[in-house]
Amino acid sequence: MIANPLYWFAPATALVALGFALYFFRQMKREDEGTDTMKRIALHVRRGAMAYLTQQYKVVVVFFAVIAVVLAFLAFVLQIQNQWVPFAFLTAGFFSGLAGFFGMKTATYAAARTANAASRSLNEGLSVAFRSGAVMGLVVVGLALFDISAWFLILNVFIKDADPIHRILIITTTMLTFGMGASLQALFARVGGGIYTKAADVGADLVGKVEAGIPEDDPRNPATIADNVGDNVGDVAGMGADLYESYCGSILATAALGAAAYGLTGDAAMQFNAVLAPLLVAALGTLLSIVGIFFVRAKPGAGHSQLMGALHRGVNVSSVLIIIGSFFLLRHLAFDNYIGVWGAIVTGLVTGIVIGKSTEYYTSQQFNPTKGIAQQAETGPATVIIAGMGVGFLSTAIPVLAVALGTILAYTFAAGSLGLEHILYGLYGIGIAAVGMLSTLGLTLATDAYGPIADNAGGNAEMSGLGPEVRSRTDALDSLGNTTAATGKGFAIGSAALTGLALLASYIQEIKMSIGRVIERAAGFTFPDGTFFTERADIQAITLVDFMAYFQIHLINPRVLVGIFLGAMMAFVFCGLTMNAVGRAAGRMVDEVRRQFREIDGILEGKNEPDYARCVEISTKGAQREMILPSVAAVLVPVVTGILLGVAGVFGLLAGTLSTGFILAVFMANSGGAWDNAKKYIEEGHFGGKGSAAHKAAIIGDTVGDPFKDTSGPSLNILIKLMSMVSIVMAGVTTAYSLF
Amino acid sequence: MIANPLYWFAPATALVALGFALYFFRQMKREDEGTDTMKRIALHVRRGAMAYLTQQYKVVVVFFAVIAVVLAFLAFVLQIQNQWVPFAFLTAGFFSGLAGFFGMKTATYAAARTANAASRSLNEGLSVAFRSGAVMGLVVVGLALFDISAWFLILNVFIKDADPIHRILIITTTMLTFGMGASLQALFARVGGGIYTKAADVGADLVGKVEAGIPEDDPRNPATIADNVGDNVGDVAGMGADLYESYCGSILATAALGAAAYGLTGDAAMQFNAVLAPLLVAALGTLLSIVGIFFVRAKPGAGHSQLMGALHRGVNVSSVLIIIGSFFLLRHLAFDNYIGVWGAIVTGLVTGIVIGKSTEYYTSQQFNPTKGIAQQAETGPATVIIAGMGVGFLSTAIPVLAVALGTILAYTFAAGSLGLEHILYGLYGIGIAAVGMLSTLGLTLATDAYGPIADNAGGNAEMSGLGPEVRSRTDALDSLGNTTAATGKGFAIGSAALTGLALLASYIQEIKMSIGRVIERAAGFTFPDGTFFTERADIQAITLVDFMAYFQIHLINPRVLVGIFLGAMMAFVFCGLTMNAVGRAAGRMVDEVRRQFREIDGILEGKNEPDYARCVEISTKGAQREMILPSVAAVLVPVVTGILLGVAGVFGLLAGTLSTGFILAVFMANSGGAWDNAKKYIEEGHFGGKGSAAHKAAIIGDTVGDPFKDTSGPSLNILIKLMSMVSIVMAGVTTAYSLF
Repeated sequence: MIANPLYWFAPATALVALGFALYFFRQMKREDEGTDTMKRIALHVRRGAMAYLTQQYKVVVVFFAVIAVVLAFLAFVLQIQNQWVPFAFLTAGFFSGLAGFFGMKTATYAAARTANAASRSLNEGLSVAFRSGAVMGLVVVGLALFDISAWFLILNVFIKDADPIHRILIITTTMLTFGMGASLQALFARVGGGIYTKAADVGADLVGKVEAGIPEDDPRNPATIADNVGDNVGDVAGMGADLYESYCGSILATAALGAAAYGLTGDAAMQFNAVLAPLLVAALGTLLSIVGIFFVRAKPGAGHSQLMGALHRGVNVSSVLIIIGSFFLLRHLAFDNYIGVWGAIVTGLVTGIVIGKSTEYYTSQQFNPTKGIAQQAETGPATVIIAGMGVGFLSTAIPVLAVALGTILAYTFAAGSLGLEHILYGLYGIGIAAVGMLSTLGLTLATDAYGPIADNAGGNAEMSGLGPEVRSRTDALDSLGNTTAATGKGFAIGSAALTGLALLASYIQEIKMSIGRVIERAAGFTFPDGTFFTERADIQAITLVDFMAYFQIHLINPRVLVGIFLGAMMAFVFCGLTMNAVGRAAGRMVDEVRRQFREIDGILEGKNEPDYARCVEISTKGAQREMILPSVAAVLVPVVTGILLGVAGVFGLLAGTLSTGFILAVFMANSGGAWDNAKKYIEEGHFGGKGSAAHKAAIIGDTVGDPFKDTSGPSLNILIKLMSMVSIVMAGVTTAYSLF
Repeated sequence: MIANPLYWFAPATALVALGFALYFFRQMKREDEGTDTMKRIALHVRRGAMAYLTQQYKVVVVFFAVIAVVLAFLAFVLQIQNQWVPFAFLTAGFFSGLAGFFGMKTATYAAARTANAASRSLNEGLSVAFRSGAVMGLVVVGLALFDISAWFLILNVFIKDADPIHRILIITTTMLTFGMGASLQALFARVGGGIYTKAADVGADLVGKVEAGIPEDDPRNPATIADNVGDNVGDVAGMGADLYESYCGSILATAALGAAAYGLTGDAAMQFNAVLAPLLVAALGTLLSIVGIFFVRAKPGAGHSQLMGALHRGVNVSSVLIIIGSFFLLRHLAFDNYIGVWGAIVTGLVTGIVIGKSTEYYTSQQFNPTKGIAQQAETGPATVIIAGMGVGFLSTAIPVLAVALGTILAYTFAAGSLGLEHILYGLYGIGIAAVGMLSTLGLTLATDAYGPIADNAGGNAEMSGLGPEVRSRTDALDSLGNTTAATGKGFAIGSAALTGLALLASYIQEIKMSIGRVIERAAGFTFPDGTFFTERADIQAITLVDFMAYFQIHLINPRVLVGIFLGAMMAFVFCGLTMNAVGRAAGRMVDEVRRQFREIDGILEGKNEPDYARCVEISTKGAQREMILPSVAAVLVPVVTGILLGVAGVFGLLAGTLSTGFILAVFMANSGGAWDNAKKYIEEGHFGGKGSAAHKAAIIGDTVGDPFKDTSGPSLNILIKLMSMVSIVMAGVTTAYSLF
């Protein structure tokens, strides 16, 4: 069944990754959680986070159940879709949720322990926080690899077809649909978590810091626990689900393209290897990430720059090793064009690094753009906002140019030229570039996830009344995390763009499959341009270029152009929905905090503990209520577009959402990041320092930036892929019922 | 030479429109300009405005000269381009500049006269302001009709070809290139004027209102004259050039598509009529706009709602008459499908109205979105900004859906179905829908341009120390203008989207012409897909759908996808450049105003007059310096993309800029408008009224919105068309030198 035993490397690596995750988790659990106050506060946060996750998953289960029933109806009753889809959809959602759960469990156990370790030394704080972040990273890649390889095995056992090449096409297109479950779970996690964390944050800041004049993370602030819970549900669970989805999406899309491209060679073994390649590159990257994790080590007493060096060393070691290792892997897999495919992988890695560096340049207070925003704070909040928007708009140039160049290079390397003669190979190259970019995810996610842990450790230190030197150490860890997080964001956004391109191509594979089913039922299929087919085998043989012609997916077809308009609009409307959701949820939090200050005596004097749980509940309910509409829109729009405007309209829709969504996401993430660090730059003593008019103006910029960078921006990455995945899963509906 | 004498209706109407403009101008000039102070302030503003325009045109002349030389080199030395292009380019720029000059001259004469008339009654104020706005409207449409019909006549005389149908194709594609001159002049006017006005506005507000605590338009503020000049150079001259360009672009694109579509019938007379149709519809609309102007009349002593009714009545009468009149016009022109083409015109008009109503809903303080933003002002500037962004993002939905539906309907009406069998007819329908939308421009521009005149009248009244009842009347006129301006903006943005679509199609016609030139020189042309042609006549016979296939302009070609990415990026980067330009120019103004307060004794006590001229000069120089980079980028990017990525890449680029630019423009215009009116709503006494904390927060929102709605947003409309026009003019370079 499994044509190449090298396959087993993937599930084995998955188990190794999960094993190391368990090992790091136990290591962290053995650390001392500190004083009773620290334990009590950690318990509050852990309970709040779990309460949130329980509530979130309750809503998600209902959603998934409804969609699974619809998918089952389409598959078993109408028989216009693949019958494995409902099951694959559910497992991907389940594993993605599990990754979020484990990540959050770890983070909430780790915060107090990090604070406690930081009270000893900076290096020990880093060690606890980073190893805990590594649990998250390894759980995400481990579960993803496990899920994908398990399904691959199952489908290899159950799916039969006389033609081995066609059999692999069925398997890979079936597996592709499995991405929808991961994407939908990720959207809920990102949108729900993003709304939660920003509602709590804005609410805590506006009433606590601004109105009552108490510091951040002060235990007298009723919203402070909710705020700390928010870091976990937004930045940990949300990010985990997000990258789980990116990781799966890039592997699955590349596998589907590999099956189509190398299926043309007529060599079933080669085709099988091309399908395995993305999975094996990911597995190799996971192993090397584990190696990299052990390189993140600093000598006792190491300062900021040495710790920074330690983090960079880990990522650099893994990246270099993956570049070397993937070369030999591809050569072993006997690709004709293994050097080209390898070039695509390297292109992907480099593109991710360039985007990360660009993010760092535009958002770090070490560079001019953010310093310029801080300077504009001297003339008040309006000029801070204008400057931050200007920086955000301009900051889109380098990532787009990097992705544009990366796309062209990856395509050209893998196809041998930019022409369309070997288009499937070129698209496979774009897909595997995304896999290359994400190959070290286990490690980059660790450097990303440790930031919110350090942030929470700071919160715990503040609320527990630890000394200012502890807080300053956790702040140093947090600031270290901001820089590495910039790299992580670069990978997340860049891989979303490349994966989106690969999914566009995979969509065609899925449409071909569903046309095959139409031919079986109706004995023929007429394309919009009038071409008529009666044989299933002939459909598989259509080239991509002819497929474009038969479906009239060219840029002068009004359906395509209208689709592009609608797709671009979706990105903007989605941002509007999530921004307004944050505004409304934050408004409810503001009212509640004001009520507690008014109605509960002695809060501000520290005599009475505020009702933390009530604030957690309000943020949770607000997030759950507000995440429904954007999610439903993301699922329904591709389906409705498919019915009204056909395949050409859907293609335009996906291209529009992909291009505009990608750029809008960069804009929002970078504006938000730059405002945040402009504020920090002023807090470091520039332009009047803390408490100055400039500082107040910069705080306003930071507050505006919160939903930009933590809610709307990152959700767009997922929107791009979810809409593609929905289109892929619903390909059967489009071919069967579209009006054109 | 001129196959249908009905042609003469267009130049005749142009002269009638210009005659009425002169009549209204003289009527306005006969009004009394008021007291000596009023005259003196008006003179300051007039001189400042003229100084700006002189400086602006100096820079523009250099630019135009350089580009004309390049175009002449391409045409006469390399012989890869049409030899009429350099001349057409220059005249369009000249007439567009002339329209701006006349409009501004009128506006600066009218402001004091409006203030003086308003001191007698609201109705008399309206009458003077509106008639002056009508001068602008009629000059724009009159000069555009004149320029287009003169060139049409000249080319008809000079261009000879044995085949009458091919002759008209040459004439219309030549005329199309003429749009680039109008677009480039418009970009300079919008970007330069937009930077000028907002630098002055932000500078005046930040130092005068916020720091020194003196009211708006106070004569003690050194930047107040520059601020009033800004209304004229941005909102009058900038808007005039903007709509001159939209108007020309839609007529020229439709004429080119008409020549191609009806050329297929083999009936030269029919083809000629199809080319005339957009010109005649525009001429008819101009005549009916003049009729409409006379319907804007209220009884003496009329209140706000009666004046509003008067304005609406004018627009409604013109719109209904154009719907009726164009039906008979098209029937007379003997279109086979005249009902379909007429349906497209009606679709265009209705789409414009829907977008206008949507703009009004999202930006007027009578409706919930703006009231919601005002309410968020109670929790400070951050929530005002977040709420305004949320409203702006969501407000993109209705305009995009309206344009999407309008595109599909206009196409379907004109082509008989949404299929691609009669694609050229359908695209002609989209073009003529844009012409229909803009047909009443003479009138809608009058209702638009009178707003800044009323605004300036208010400034004059304030500075001249007229009583508060005069200021409250000019404020009423201004607020009336805001509502009608929303409609005007709807037409400007909607027509940009439709014209952009039509220009995409016209681009193909231009590429065909330049391939013809390649064949003459090189005896053959190979398309990127390998198809080879040796006969010029065969190129003309290629259908649009085949053209897409030969150039591989479908959505799976990486060059197209990368082009879309780059195009979408251009819209964002352009916004970033213009936003930052406003920030920098405003910073210089802030420094200067502070310097004057510091160095010139007795300004704030009113003993010494500030140095108004210096502020005017700073704004002028700042605007000139800052407008260069965005304009150069807009011209170069399509050329470079053409060389690097070929026709397919340019097509992607234009589609990306069109879709993202359109939506971004709506977002920026509506966010800005809503912030402005949220502030006004609070000033009307809600949420604490003037001087409250909410008011201060709302002022910050308004200041952020200034560059959104008056600089970056409106410039995007032009960017879309300028990039198309540059691609069209440079088609010869792309076909001759592209690397693919």
